[in-house]
Amino acid sequence: MILHTDKNIDPQKLRQLADRYEAVILNTPDFNVLITPSALKKTDEADQQFIKESFVFDTDIQLASNKYIKGKRSIKIGDHYIGGNSNNVLVTIGPCSVESEEQITQTAEFLKKTGLKSLRAGCFKPRTSPYTFQGLGLEGLKLLDKIRQQYGFTIVTEVRDSSHVDDVIAYADVIQIGAKSMYDHGILRKCSKTHKPILLKRGFGSTLQEFVQASEFILSGGNPNVILCERGIRTFETKTRFTLDLCGAAYLKENTNLPIILDPSHAMGYAYGVPDLARACMAMGIEGLLIEVHPNPAVALSDASQQLNHEQFSRLFETLKPIAKAVNRTII
Amino acid sequence: MILHTDKNIDPQKLRQLADRYEAVILNTPDFNVLITPSALKKTDEADQQFIKESFVFDTDIQLASNKYIKGKRSIKIGDHYIGGNSNNVLVTIGPCSVESEEQITQTAEFLKKTGLKSLRAGCFKPRTSPYTFQGLGLEGLKLLDKIRQQYGFTIVTEVRDSSHVDDVIAYADVIQIGAKSMYDHGILRKCSKTHKPILLKRGFGSTLQEFVQASEFILSGGNPNVILCERGIRTFETKTRFTLDLCGAAYLKENTNLPIILDPSHAMGYAYGVPDLARACMAMGIEGLLIEVHPNPAVALSDASQQLNHEQFSRLFETLKPIAKAVNRTII
Amino acid sequence: MILHTDKNIDPQKLRQLADRYEAVILNTPDFNVLITPSALKKTDEADQQFIKESFVFDTDIQLASNKYIKGKRSIKIGDHYIGGNSNNVLVTIGPCSVESEEQITQTAEFLKKTGLKSLRAGCFKPRTSPYTFQGLGLEGLKLLDKIRQQYGFTIVTEVRDSSHVDDVIAYADVIQIGAKSMYDHGILRKCSKTHKPILLKRGFGSTLQEFVQASEFILSGGNPNVILCERGIRTFETKTRFTLDLCGAAYLKENTNLPIILDPSHAMGYAYGVPDLARACMAMGIEGLLIEVHPNPAVALSDASQQLNHEQFSRLFETLKPIAKAVNRTII
Amino acid sequence: MILHTDKNIDPQKLRQLADRYEAVILNTPDFNVLITPSALKKTDEADQQFIKESFVFDTDIQLASNKYIKGKRSIKIGDHYIGGNSNNVLVTIGPCSVESEEQITQTAEFLKKTGLKSLRAGCFKPRTSPYTFQGLGLEGLKLLDKIRQQYGFTIVTEVRDSSHVDDVIAYADVIQIGAKSMYDHGILRKCSKTHKPILLKRGFGSTLQEFVQASEFILSGGNPNVILCERGIRTFETKTRFTLDLCGAAYLKENTNLPIILDPSHAMGYAYGVPDLARACMAMGIEGLLIEVHPNPAVALSDASQQLNHEQFSRLFETLKPIAKAVNRTII
Repeated sequence: MILHTDKNIDPQKLRQLADRYEAVILNTPDFNVLITPSALKKTDEADQQFIKESFVFDTDIQLASNKYIKGKRSIKIGDHYIGGNSNNVLVTIGPCSVESEEQITQTAEFLKKTGLKSLRAGCFKPRTSPYTFQGLGLEGLKLLDKIRQQYGFTIVTEVRDSSHVDDVIAYADVIQIGAKSMYDHGILRKCSKTHKPILLKRGFGSTLQEFVQASEFILSGGNPNVILCERGIRTFETKTRFTLDLCGAAYLKENTNLPIILDPSHAMGYAYGVPDLARACMAMGIEGLLIEVHPNPAVALSDASQQLNHEQFSRLFETLKPIAKAVNRTII
Repeated sequence: MILHTDKNIDPQKLRQLADRYEAVILNTPDFNVLITPSALKKTDEADQQFIKESFVFDTDIQLASNKYIKGKRSIKIGDHYIGGNSNNVLVTIGPCSVESEEQITQTAEFLKKTGLKSLRAGCFKPRTSPYTFQGLGLEGLKLLDKIRQQYGFTIVTEVRDSSHVDDVIAYADVIQIGAKSMYDHGILRKCSKTHKPILLKRGFGSTLQEFVQASEFILSGGNPNVILCERGIRTFETKTRFTLDLCGAAYLKENTNLPIILDPSHAMGYAYGVPDLARACMAMGIEGLLIEVHPNPAVALSDASQQLNHEQFSRLFETLKPIAKAVNRTII
Repeated sequence: MILHTDKNIDPQKLRQLADRYEAVILNTPDFNVLITPSALKKTDEADQQFIKESFVFDTDIQLASNKYIKGKRSIKIGDHYIGGNSNNVLVTIGPCSVESEEQITQTAEFLKKTGLKSLRAGCFKPRTSPYTFQGLGLEGLKLLDKIRQQYGFTIVTEVRDSSHVDDVIAYADVIQIGAKSMYDHGILRKCSKTHKPILLKRGFGSTLQEFVQASEFILSGGNPNVILCERGIRTFETKTRFTLDLCGAAYLKENTNLPIILDPSHAMGYAYGVPDLARACMAMGIEGLLIEVHPNPAVALSDASQQLNHEQFSRLFETLKPIAKAVNRTII
Repeated sequence: MILHTDKNIDPQKLRQLADRYEAVILNTPDFNVLITPSALKKTDEADQQFIKESFVFDTDIQLASNKYIKGKRSIKIGDHYIGGNSNNVLVTIGPCSVESEEQITQTAEFLKKTGLKSLRAGCFKPRTSPYTFQGLGLEGLKLLDKIRQQYGFTIVTEVRDSSHVDDVIAYADVIQIGAKSMYDHGILRKCSKTHKPILLKRGFGSTLQEFVQASEFILSGGNPNVILCERGIRTFETKTRFTLDLCGAAYLKENTNLPIILDPSHAMGYAYGVPDLARACMAMGIEGLLIEVHPNPAVALSDASQQLNHEQFSRLFETLKPIAKAVNRTII
């Protein structure tokens, strides 16, 4: 259950209620919120004087549920909003990894030409082998910071594990929690203590239930700005790297109040399929698209096969615009 | 390998070549085609005088490969074509099952209003329980035939197992091979002996490789008119009935010469997600969409949860048109 | 529900009851059985005079459920029983395909030496490519028949599709329904009309629920002799051919009344892992093991990589014996 | 490649070689080891004077490969070894979570009676919901420490994320890296800096390749004592919690030099199936079993359905002994 109490409730009483119902306390400007396990379906008669409003749920998807907040939460990214009353679609592009100042500057120049405002690139790469490029780390974050100052772009970059989460929170405009870190309580709890937007990627072996519940760690810890990112799940099919779960995206759209960004690049794993998938994603009527673009994919240090070059993205981008218009969306 | 020999080759010689290379013989109007296992990469020097053209393949995807025929095969459905030089998208709709004359007539009246020309409905249902509705069988086929005569629609209907394949071939305009029958050699071979278009659905546990290889049974048996239908694969996610594999659709688009129809209804399993998915499918730039529509889904004898009612489909249909236009396609 | 009526019930009354409750009628020596959809949870007051006993179920797993019959059904194979009060484990071995008289005779000679009594080999192979060996067909069945007459072995062989189901039923002692045919109503219904044991393989993309429901087609059609065979499901893991689902075997053991045979060969796909898996299967306490053995796997026309040679099987067989003893089972 | 250089190689030269071949340096008592990306297949002529031995690999499974070390590494746990020349099977049991001193003492008393020597229990629980029991944390570790001092058991306990990895390393005898943390570089790198045995669980969505590669982070960082634990993968089947991948276990046995522990409890998710699965695991001939046992599963704060009570485990344990004997293993 979610219980709203009066903002002026006696703190000791609030604590008592939290203890009785094994609830997490979340302070918001307007009222205090108690979130109990969803197994609780009603409160004691005697406590109801303290409760202004209450919400019952089938599962531990509570703060993220559209039964709690109708429509999509509004989240500010740079000067723009996604979700809420806006029809904006954030298109964030960039290379898998920051590799060098030259590479990231080329990307920034290209981004500027497209008119887009958000750059994504990783510094701490969650590689599956210790013998491959692991990212530039803090040095990469500093390069991204420089780009932001020079170009005014918002920066989307990824945290890999809790050991560097503070650095990423400090440098990023949007903190991406990677698919392999979706269950990481250390990261989730740290991200709940900032108010910067969190782009939470679905683990490729994670159910939609677990995915949205991971967002509850952030929401219940105090950060209301969570964006869900579907990026492909692992299935028996191996001709493509993963399987983009647009049925899942439809489920998330219907059942949660969190904006949704789709990532066709990681799902497909091959550049040839990314444009068609990106167009499909745009037609879904979601809040964002994340597409890997690299000045020269052939020499990329990670994810070489799936990144579009600048020309390929430009062609794709022209075709996204009429589809956005057809589904009444504005690309930002 | 695929080997083209002269049309006038001595039949005995052709037979010899087929035997030597363990090849299937396919007679076409222009030349004789030998299809060997793909493991064969070259023919003997002495035989090359008989071979006009030859094609080598990595796997047993041969006749369906875009290395053999560039672009999509052109397939006639009613008075229209899909694939080839056309930009047509066949939108075929109708109930999961033919349930009664009244129900199928209501559907036909609705179809007429939309301006669409193709009705799909099943008569032999591949249910997983023996204790549920199994379809009207031959009686259903006769009802569909009546509708065709009255309204001029093309009829898409499904064969479940080889015991009634001849009936379905006789009555249908497009023979649908269901997901659960994709490996059925009895059906595949019978379907190779007609020239009616075959809509081959991907088994929900089948790889793309197996899916396209199933089409090779039909193509190599003499029927060049195969359409591939992705309808969702089975994954660990259970909030939705299946997972629509649009990465797979992108693979099929790139690597095969067969037109593609997508079926968001069976993938999603719930009506609420079908419109968004249908829009995504349309934006993929494929040759067709199959959507389950029922006059009154609440009382449907099968697949009740996933069928759209007429009003829902009408609203969806209006939104499909601008997307089709955006991707340069014409709905038929 | 399953309803038992008196054997002497008026046939017209029985028909009326069946119609009212949408039930399948199954005649057994002792009583008439009506099987309704499991959604039905009780019958009308007025009808209860005709009903001697009734059983309620959560799902359409009814005749196969251990809520209907406790323990495992007893099924006769040759001169022996599996299930019931026996502790027998049928170990049936042989090549993937009958390839020649020489090959199958070598196998028979080897089988004779081991002391085992059941030979398995396929004649109609459900290959995924039309350009590979499809099996010897009827000729293969005749070779197996000859072996049976000469050696007295029971013959386990597979039906691929309904077009040859009558032949397989005629020649086999145990009719195997392959994984790719598990949903084939044509085969299931034909197999329900014989009393020969049916070895039903689980589809590699099929849930346990669907698997057991497929057996209900056979059981409710009149054949009480169904054996369930788990042979590996398709998962994201590709280092092995399939993933043997022993958790699923534990579920089937607990919840159904059907004997269970496990097939480690198809699951693993590589000979090196078969012995360890076969030992694991034996320790599960099931009713049978199916292991592919070939006189010379290197030259096998199908499944070459997973078949054991005679020496490998002999070594494995010696290690199966003490495990069988440890779990109180007798190998037949 | 793995390159062995002389122990007395000039450190600057070693550094140069590492730089040239993008290698990780690992110092062992006998020689210096350089591990390069597996894409490297040979070294320069000029460098071969410094290289005593070299090993080439197909993939980044290198230190863990049986092409590098034949047989299983020997790992000391308490006073005993697993792997190496021993035939020991470590059976470690205990509750999912430490819940109270009483509960863990009851477990210890039971363990003492069985004669087993290793207790497993979690303190930091990687729950998927923030509204459920998250474990006792450091307090739990201290309770386990007390038990160890009192009873002399070895303690197996889990690290959930990098924020408390130091504490777990300090208190545990065997550090378990949970399935949800398998990709966590922060944890993997910390665990590479101790010499305590690491029990690395396979992520339920992780391939065998990724699983073994995760162990390479630990091995290449300096800790040679890694044990692989298969605990079920996520598949389409939902009647059981996960699917125990014994085909995968057979692969790991054949291809790696790391001891293997199997966990039937988490795979099955239901107590009824655990005994049969545990017997199957024992028959696989592996180095250990991990089984969840709780004094009173009905009131357990996590994983209530899958834990065995003491009586159930005792009965199971008696049946494990003859199977261990049958496969020539000694339970410790």
